[in-house]
Amino acid sequence: MGLDPSIVKELIRITDEERVLLSLDERYTYAFDASFGTYLPDVVVFPQSATEIAEIMKLANREQIPVTPRGGGTSLSGGPLPVAGGIVLAMTRMNKLLRIDRDNLIAFVEPGITTAELQREAEKAGLFYPPDPSSSNVSTIGGNLAENSGGPHGLKYGVTKHYVIGLEVVTPQGEIIRTGGMTVKNVTGYDLTSLIVGSEGTLGIITKAVLRLIPKPPARKALMAIFDEIVDSGRAISGILKNGILPAKLEMMDQASIRAVENYQPSGLPLDAAAILLLEVDGHPAAVDEEIRKAAQICRQYAAREVRLAADEAERAELWKARKLVSPAISQVKPTKISEDATVPRSKIPEMLERLRQIREKYQLHLVVFGHAGDGNLHPNIIADSRDRDEMKRVEEAVAEIFKAAVELGGTLSGEHGIGTMKPAFMEMELGSAGLDMMRRIKQAWDPNNILNPFKIFPQPGQTRVVLTE
Amino acid sequence: MGLDPSIVKELIRITDEERVLLSLDERYTYAFDASFGTYLPDVVVFPQSATEIAEIMKLANREQIPVTPRGGGTSLSGGPLPVAGGIVLAMTRMNKLLRIDRDNLIAFVEPGITTAELQREAEKAGLFYPPDPSSSNVSTIGGNLAENSGGPHGLKYGVTKHYVIGLEVVTPQGEIIRTGGMTVKNVTGYDLTSLIVGSEGTLGIITKAVLRLIPKPPARKALMAIFDEIVDSGRAISGILKNGILPAKLEMMDQASIRAVENYQPSGLPLDAAAILLLEVDGHPAAVDEEIRKAAQICRQYAAREVRLAADEAERAELWKARKLVSPAISQVKPTKISEDATVPRSKIPEMLERLRQIREKYQLHLVVFGHAGDGNLHPNIIADSRDRDEMKRVEEAVAEIFKAAVELGGTLSGEHGIGTMKPAFMEMELGSAGLDMMRRIKQAWDPNNILNPFKIFPQPGQTRVVLTE
Repeated sequence: MGLDPSIVKELIRITDEERVLLSLDERYTYAFDASFGTYLPDVVVFPQSATEIAEIMKLANREQIPVTPRGGGTSLSGGPLPVAGGIVLAMTRMNKLLRIDRDNLIAFVEPGITTAELQREAEKAGLFYPPDPSSSNVSTIGGNLAENSGGPHGLKYGVTKHYVIGLEVVTPQGEIIRTGGMTVKNVTGYDLTSLIVGSEGTLGIITKAVLRLIPKPPARKALMAIFDEIVDSGRAISGILKNGILPAKLEMMDQASIRAVENYQPSGLPLDAAAILLLEVDGHPAAVDEEIRKAAQICRQYAAREVRLAADEAERAELWKARKLVSPAISQVKPTKISEDATVPRSKIPEMLERLRQIREKYQLHLVVFGHAGDGNLHPNIIADSRDRDEMKRVEEAVAEIFKAAVELGGTLSGEHGIGTMKPAFMEMELGSAGLDMMRRIKQAWDPNNILNPFKIFPQPGQTRVVLTE
Repeated sequence: MGLDPSIVKELIRITDEERVLLSLDERYTYAFDASFGTYLPDVVVFPQSATEIAEIMKLANREQIPVTPRGGGTSLSGGPLPVAGGIVLAMTRMNKLLRIDRDNLIAFVEPGITTAELQREAEKAGLFYPPDPSSSNVSTIGGNLAENSGGPHGLKYGVTKHYVIGLEVVTPQGEIIRTGGMTVKNVTGYDLTSLIVGSEGTLGIITKAVLRLIPKPPARKALMAIFDEIVDSGRAISGILKNGILPAKLEMMDQASIRAVENYQPSGLPLDAAAILLLEVDGHPAAVDEEIRKAAQICRQYAAREVRLAADEAERAELWKARKLVSPAISQVKPTKISEDATVPRSKIPEMLERLRQIREKYQLHLVVFGHAGDGNLHPNIIADSRDRDEMKRVEEAVAEIFKAAVELGGTLSGEHGIGTMKPAFMEMELGSAGLDMMRRIKQAWDPNNILNPFKIFPQPGQTRVVLTE
């Protein structure tokens, strides 16, 4: 194993010695992400410019070495895993916020900046960058773009791709191209920006991005509604949206999530409730006041047994704390957490919840459900122990059934985590062979040597299962 | 010229006799759009299903016959022109609104429905489909999707692509695929939906679309601000946006537009004004009241000599009438109207206006400027007479300079009309050869026989000019 010394020498020539990691322990740090599997790269390189990356891609094509770009490594689907070894391009040193242009409401960034830093800088300028994946303190904008990250704001504000108007990209064969530009309106040729965003690092390496910002909403208010029947919480969601209210966030937690949180850090949540909805509206203060009152009334109308209105910012933060604690809380139950993001049309949420209940019983698993109910993007999480082979086999089957349920209900395998190494086996079920073939044609046309982030998105021949173990 | 009788027979077998037009006068009706040039198709077919279109595409590939899909024929860039003859697929009989799903805030439509009809149906359901190209009474949703149409609402609400979440598409080689789905969040593979939207009918024929709707804003108010200096109107635009107001529409008219309108239909516009801004805000009534007052104040602060606030819906409609009259008014001046849509970052609008003034003087042309100033999408229109060869030569040079100015100012050739037959010669100037090559690779991978809408977007070898004459 290992790269030919002449190639290492060339990588050092393109960058410098300090930016090429070769030792086993250093490489090991870049062998995993927040999903499953450990794949050791042969070398980790920290590029500092598009030109360096272009040179590396040309070298990689000449020598047939796989290249995997990597941001914060928070992917839940295996995006940055160097499955075939080769070169990991760690983008974290290209982390400058180049400029916030208040006149044009745009930000120019390098890919290695964290999502949270961009959000803070936008806020300082009185502006707002809505996409809010929960890993925002660690995840990079480059990773968010590669995966088209979502988050709670998706319901009202859309997802990452709705805020990307231009890119600088190094193609798989090492050309530097620019896509889109500085204007929201742009129909000059095919929309390569949207094609590259969400392509999970398989079609190009983003080296610069132009992001659209919006004016910061001047006010926001939140409430928590507690339900005895999960189906009532689903009806309340539809009721709110039908009444012309578009909340900034509309999240739900099922009983298992509520209990996990209370067990982890008592927060005054009702242990006997079937479901909790957390809702936030933002905008003009008068609109916010009226909408939060109306939303509370609708929740009560759909049999919420209690509605807690946050009176101020402190209480608002307190309400959201419960939701933020779900992930750490459930991680305490067992060591292995399989976080899914199958997404259904919002009207199908009650049916999806019922299907998830059946799957939990059939496979006798610890399955917790929470997530972005307002846009149909639930997070069924299975808590297991990866050392228990029998349990993991049941997990794999349960996950396959979750995907099947989502697709049968008119939904999709993945709302915001991506396909990566975890879900390729199920692509054809959703897309059909012709649909998948049209995607594959693009990959082949752009990356004829299959150098850039191989083994992602597209199933290998005979691949039929979820990748939970190597 | 003319198709082999056996092919005509096969087209009739796939559809039926009544849906295959062969006579010269019938074919002539489908030989032009709202741009330039007349290209006679060999046959016009009215498909009624994706299956029929798939069969036609397979036949066309086998026999190497070009196919051009067509909606309302309102394209300003030549999208539906059958440049190489062959088959025109007139999509106007696939015009059903299949369903408005209020629970999920989505509409299912066939491509032949007009934009205005969809807007009306959405409104009846208390919902809102924001994209508003000015041809909406005639243009079809299929055409809007193919061209990624914009309109005044682009500033606040984005453009057509922001409202398309799923498609059924017949590929150039005659496979029926589905892209996206019924959820806003969907990261299952490449975003083929966004790739096909705006591809000007060169990558697939849209046979069904799933469109996202939003709650209808409960209130709206409009104002007109009159400026003696064009540069002040530009500053007012920046001032409004910097103050956290995101108007639903923010349009401008220059002196030439104002005079054309007053000459055509006196509307009480000030003939001596340098520019008019028309602004509308929508949303919660309290927010709307406050924002319109604030916007008026900002306009005055930037030297507007007069601000007219519409007191009610009737006055509001009256204000917008002036803007709607610009196109018909300028068409009265001379018979040939060349409508451009070069778009610049909004902060560059004053500079772009100055460049347009210089171009007008240099080429001694009747150049009128109006458009969507809020998002940088201006419409410089040149009014000429296509029988005057010398004038048309100057028009061609002026248009080339307009494109050059837009790109130099960080903008784009086309904000909402598309490239079509009009702008291919300038693609490389904006995208570079590598960027254009990545687009071409997709076209070749999807349509290896170059059957679907050829001679659009991509320049022919040696093509250097605007297509204003055949």
